[in-house]
Amino acid sequence: MGKVHQEDSNVKEKNSELSLVRVKGTWKSKTGLKIKDAVDCVSAAKIYESISEQGTTWTVVSPITFTYKVTETHSLLDPSNDTLLLGHITDPQQMEDIKRSNKPMRRFVVVDQEVYKIYGPKLTEYLEANDVVYKVLALPTTEENKSMETALKILEEVNNFSLDRRTEPVIAIGGGVCLDIVGLAASLYRRRTPYIRVPTTLLSYIDASVGAKTGVNFANCKNKLGAYIPPAAAFLDLSFMQSVPRRHISNGLAEMLKMALMKHKGLFELLEEHGCMLLDTKFQTGNNVYGHNSVKVASQTTRIAILTMLEELAPNLWEDDLNRLVDFGHLISPALEMKVLPSLLHGEAVNIDMSYMTYVSHESGLLTEEEKQRIISCMVGLELPVWHEEFTMELVQKSLQDRLKHSGGLVRMPLPVGLGQAEIFNNISYDILQKAFIKWCEELSVSSDSTCDA
Amino acid sequence: MGKVHQEDSNVKEKNSELSLVRVKGTWKSKTGLKIKDAVDCVSAAKIYESISEQGTTWTVVSPITFTYKVTETHSLLDPSNDTLLLGHITDPQQMEDIKRSNKPMRRFVVVDQEVYKIYGPKLTEYLEANDVVYKVLALPTTEENKSMETALKILEEVNNFSLDRRTEPVIAIGGGVCLDIVGLAASLYRRRTPYIRVPTTLLSYIDASVGAKTGVNFANCKNKLGAYIPPAAAFLDLSFMQSVPRRHISNGLAEMLKMALMKHKGLFELLEEHGCMLLDTKFQTGNNVYGHNSVKVASQTTRIAILTMLEELAPNLWEDDLNRLVDFGHLISPALEMKVLPSLLHGEAVNIDMSYMTYVSHESGLLTEEEKQRIISCMVGLELPVWHEEFTMELVQKSLQDRLKHSGGLVRMPLPVGLGQAEIFNNISYDILQKAFIKWCEELSVSSDSTCDA
Ligand SMILES: NC(=O)c1ccc[n+]([C@@H]2O[C@H](COP(=O)([O-])OP(=O)(O)OC[C@H]3O[C@@H](n4cnc5c(N)ncnc54)[C@H](O)[C@@H]3O)[C@@H](O)[C@H]2O)c1
Ligand SMILES: NC(=O)c1ccc[n+]([C@@H]2O[C@H](COP(=O)([O-])OP(=O)(O)OC[C@H]3O[C@@H](n4cnc5c(N)ncnc54)[C@H](O)[C@@H]3O)[C@@H](O)[C@H]2O)c1
Ligand SMILES: [Zn+2]
Ligand SMILES: [Zn+2]
Repeated sequence: MGKVHQEDSNVKEKNSELSLVRVKGTWKSKTGLKIKDAVDCVSAAKIYESISEQGTTWTVVSPITFTYKVTETHSLLDPSNDTLLLGHITDPQQMEDIKRSNKPMRRFVVVDQEVYKIYGPKLTEYLEANDVVYKVLALPTTEENKSMETALKILEEVNNFSLDRRTEPVIAIGGGVCLDIVGLAASLYRRRTPYIRVPTTLLSYIDASVGAKTGVNFANCKNKLGAYIPPAAAFLDLSFMQSVPRRHISNGLAEMLKMALMKHKGLFELLEEHGCMLLDTKFQTGNNVYGHNSVKVASQTTRIAILTMLEELAPNLWEDDLNRLVDFGHLISPALEMKVLPSLLHGEAVNIDMSYMTYVSHESGLLTEEEKQRIISCMVGLELPVWHEEFTMELVQKSLQDRLKHSGGLVRMPLPVGLGQAEIFNNISYDILQKAFIKWCEELSVSSDSTCDA
Repeated sequence: MGKVHQEDSNVKEKNSELSLVRVKGTWKSKTGLKIKDAVDCVSAAKIYESISEQGTTWTVVSPITFTYKVTETHSLLDPSNDTLLLGHITDPQQMEDIKRSNKPMRRFVVVDQEVYKIYGPKLTEYLEANDVVYKVLALPTTEENKSMETALKILEEVNNFSLDRRTEPVIAIGGGVCLDIVGLAASLYRRRTPYIRVPTTLLSYIDASVGAKTGVNFANCKNKLGAYIPPAAAFLDLSFMQSVPRRHISNGLAEMLKMALMKHKGLFELLEEHGCMLLDTKFQTGNNVYGHNSVKVASQTTRIAILTMLEELAPNLWEDDLNRLVDFGHLISPALEMKVLPSLLHGEAVNIDMSYMTYVSHESGLLTEEEKQRIISCMVGLELPVWHEEFTMELVQKSLQDRLKHSGGLVRMPLPVGLGQAEIFNNISYDILQKAFIKWCEELSVSSDSTCDA
């Protein structure tokens, strides 16, 4: 902001910085605020006033602080666990008031239809046991229904329920699709109604639940409409994973591997060593051939994945900084995903992108041959595709050109530099991209007689 | 947040505060950060980790800073004035890049249809003269069309224009309805596309342009869906007022009077003395019977109205603080407005509410009889209604009960205490409300034989 308010003696301009101080319940703007002034409180917001012959400009600078919780818990739907109903509350006074009140709580819950089939009885039992006045809306929250129409349908029901936006958060239970739609609907209702995310797929457990993004598809584009409004809380319970199909476990592992490759060698080694066990046990405890070790690895890996993700998201909640390590695997994959829809899941497309980028890193001298091979083997171990015939050099070029346009003129390509470390590059040459592509096809294309033309 | 992180020796809990520091393009969380640590940058965001037997909770605290400009200018559509195209830019580097570039600028503009009829030719001339590649969408942005459907229609066109959300803000030109719909549409597009507000009514000039609120009506409720996303800039030009019908000038003056009564005796005195002139001249310069004085008063009143409004909005952009002086006149009026739709304009309903509240203040001993009468006379001078037969004691009660429910159990009633000063009250008795109502009807009901039953 500095530049805007510089005084320039050639220009007839008067610039002042106005602090906002609360005096008896009203806000007053003051220049040259002195500490000793008797005021209740000084706002973090500021107004800069600049008066010239062309007119007056007020520049408003106003910070909003988002606070949200991400909680890993267990037995979320056990009637004695009050996390789902009260875990989002941060104000002890409010908590006390609720616990003392004898009015029943009210909750509006949106659940993915498939999830409802499996966990519906447990959910209603939970709500009944806690004397909650509730409405449970089970919806087919699929990628095809991920639209503003579905959001509006939810909003009509929310409105009929006559929800109190101060004290009755909307609860979403399902995969990323469900969480994204409900998050958007709640964020629009009365300009912001708190909502709670309960992820039931691995992908949404470690990714969609952790950040601020909501969205729906629009005009054939993924997540073209949405908002950056975090939930009041995300409540994570691994026991939902037991019913997730194996392929969808792999799908989630791809995003976990992304964080490992970008930021955490320890996580990579856990996935390398225990990938198969995680697929077999679906992150569940209990008697399986792997014994107690499976519990430990499940909790270690999710914990690291979530914390590393939070590290990248919290300082950049609204994605104002375009240099984002979490974009790894997401430069070419959106175009691939759209092209072959619905044959690849999101994490699968991401993995194919990461696999190619691993070759780009290697070709650029950022990874050794051995490191490259370890990464690819790990992917195979996680039962993720590492190559796809529709992933062409043309697609790479088009995607990177598109990205240039939307990222302030720089390609901002995250690449692994060693295992569990990464940097962002803007100067990878076409030559490198192509050489990497040829080698990638030679080594990984499914048909041994590669039909790859670069 | 303090309470959440207290250590309690009875509970097996480990709490830590994690700072986020950037090390070579990646964010790392660190406990016990030392200043001397070699890091690029420490984020204002924080993560608090709390590990107990029930699981782990990460509390994310992440501030987002909104920066926007409100500029009063003149000759906005004069081809030599580049405010509309470049006035929102704050980064000098970006400004230089654009000025040096020989690519034409691209702009998507939504205009109220009635405004387009009057200013359309000037607008297109302006865009042509500046070599802008543009799409102008003229829409009937009326209260009846203030819906998500209209927002989606705009979004389809925005998408067809293939707008670059980084560098091509959407421009909205019209009254509050147009600005509110376009603001919401832009805020949804790619989770946030900058937009620019150009108000063409007095109400939107001093009110809808100044804050962060966007919205559309839903399920028969005003502004039930929306967002708190400020524009990149609001560009204000009084010359649009020349074509605004006299009744709509009064309408805007009501919101101006609100700020005067709450916060600024000087503004009140200006409106008291010059109300009629402002209505006659419609805030225009040029040869009228009032001479140069009209220019001075027009710019003084708008300036004070905007600055006092900014003072209240900037520290409370997302309305988290429920004690809001700008709610004056807005406690009973929404119900009245809905009840008699479309016979009262928003400002008219607000004024009737303010008129009654002035009597409540007087009855509570907060205003003298003389002050009360000066306020009512000023309202009459601004040609605003001061009484309405559908404004009943029943409506007052119902509205205040509703408000209690949505304002954390307190009624938070702003009332003038003297001229240009106000406070917020929670304990005005039913007795006072009723006595004030009876007197209000006696003195102001249009029929002299008051049929008022309280
Ligand atoms: N907001 C974000 O930050 C973010 C991050 C990543 C992905 N996403 C979004 O998430 C979506 C993908 O999420 P997803 O992979 O969870 O897809 P999904 O929501 O479509 O769920 C996948 C399938 O699993 C079923 N399912 C869900 N939980 C189950 C359970 N416990 N047992 C059995 N079946 C279950 C669902 O019915 C569905 O058929 C995409 O739309 C993507 O855009 C958002
Ligand atoms: N976002 C906010 O903070 C905020 C604040 C106050 C009001 N509002 C909203 O604003 C709306 C009311 O705004 P409004 O009073 O401007 O109504 P409006 O937008 O409906 O405009 C009123 C009428 O004036 C016409 N018009 C506009 N400019 C004109 C011009 N220069 N010359 C001639 N005719 C013109 C319009 O076509 C319309 O018929 C409401 O929907 C209200 O909710 C929003
Ligand atoms: Zn992803
Ligand atoms: Zn208003």
